[in-house]
Amino acid sequence: MLKEDSEVHELNTKVLFSKRLSVEQVEEGNDLAPKFNGDGLIPVVTTDFESGELLMHGYMNDQSLKLSIKTNEMHYFSRSRNQIWHKGATSGFIQKIQTLLIDDDQDAIWARVKVAGGASCHVGYRSCFYREIKNNNQEVSLEFTELEKVFDPEEVYPGVDNPTKL
Amino acid sequence: MLKEDSEVHELNTKVLFSKRLSVEQVEEGNDLAPKFNGDGLIPVVTTDFESGELLMHGYMNDQSLKLSIKTNEMHYFSRSRNQIWHKGATSGFIQKIQTLLIDDDQDAIWARVKVAGGASCHVGYRSCFYREIKNNNQEVSLEFTELEKVFDPEEVYPGVDNPTKL
Repeated sequence: MLKEDSEVHELNTKVLFSKRLSVEQVEEGNDLAPKFNGDGLIPVVTTDFESGELLMHGYMNDQSLKLSIKTNEMHYFSRSRNQIWHKGATSGFIQKIQTLLIDDDQDAIWARVKVAGGASCHVGYRSCFYREIKNNNQEVSLEFTELEKVFDPEEVYPGVDNPTKL
Repeated sequence: MLKEDSEVHELNTKVLFSKRLSVEQVEEGNDLAPKFNGDGLIPVVTTDFESGELLMHGYMNDQSLKLSIKTNEMHYFSRSRNQIWHKGATSGFIQKIQTLLIDDDQDAIWARVKVAGGASCHVGYRSCFYREIKNNNQEVSLEFTELEKVFDPEEVYPGVDNPTKL
């Protein structure tokens, strides 16, 4: 993470967030005044710019949001690895930001991206949301909406721990 | 919340979630085994079924997810009011679930909905994400993408506290 750490250091002097002063400023103003949760994170919704499909739900910390704004490439904060995560640095599936939006109370981010390679899910699917919740008389099960993986995760992430935690 | 509480009681005996037993089960299986965070919540991404637009980012607890599955209407958990929140119960802007999906490690939900009345944001806009983050040589500001409100929040939510917290 040395490269990102040095970038972060430089960023601190350039990209600045505003303080949250009033509800009106936060909801109706032009200041970027994001709210991070108790863990210092803000949730991020990432959709495909062309298709609109939801690709991922992730988190950013203060530094990864600044890096994303500066570089126009998605930088998340990996909770399982506890570090900034430049999406695509390992897999090559860089997410190029086309539009970055924030919600009314500025505690959630929406990124519309183009993905090099077309895949965003570590399991190998195009989207992380590849299963639909089906309710058949209160019998709930999951039904796959993507039938084929786009890539083989063992080839793309050799030796990398699976981020999914029980 | 009495009505919802009684529904919740009934639900407990019907809609059941699976235990999280293995990474393979969670990522590649057909069991619904959602992971709630330390506050008992799971984040929810809500998009418009027709346009694909991101409408809201919210949270559900165990009971509101079960209620949503059972009724096909979005029930969130309001962190500011600390209670289950049947979206549209006050405003009339009910969100009818068309498709409900879950992500790879089952710690995020994607709801594709049709909205009665066409608005989802308590400030009065169609989407909560009505401002774009613009970066002009590290000078960051927000630019409005929706120029007109769909409704007047003071008419729709008379006497209701604003949920936005600083």
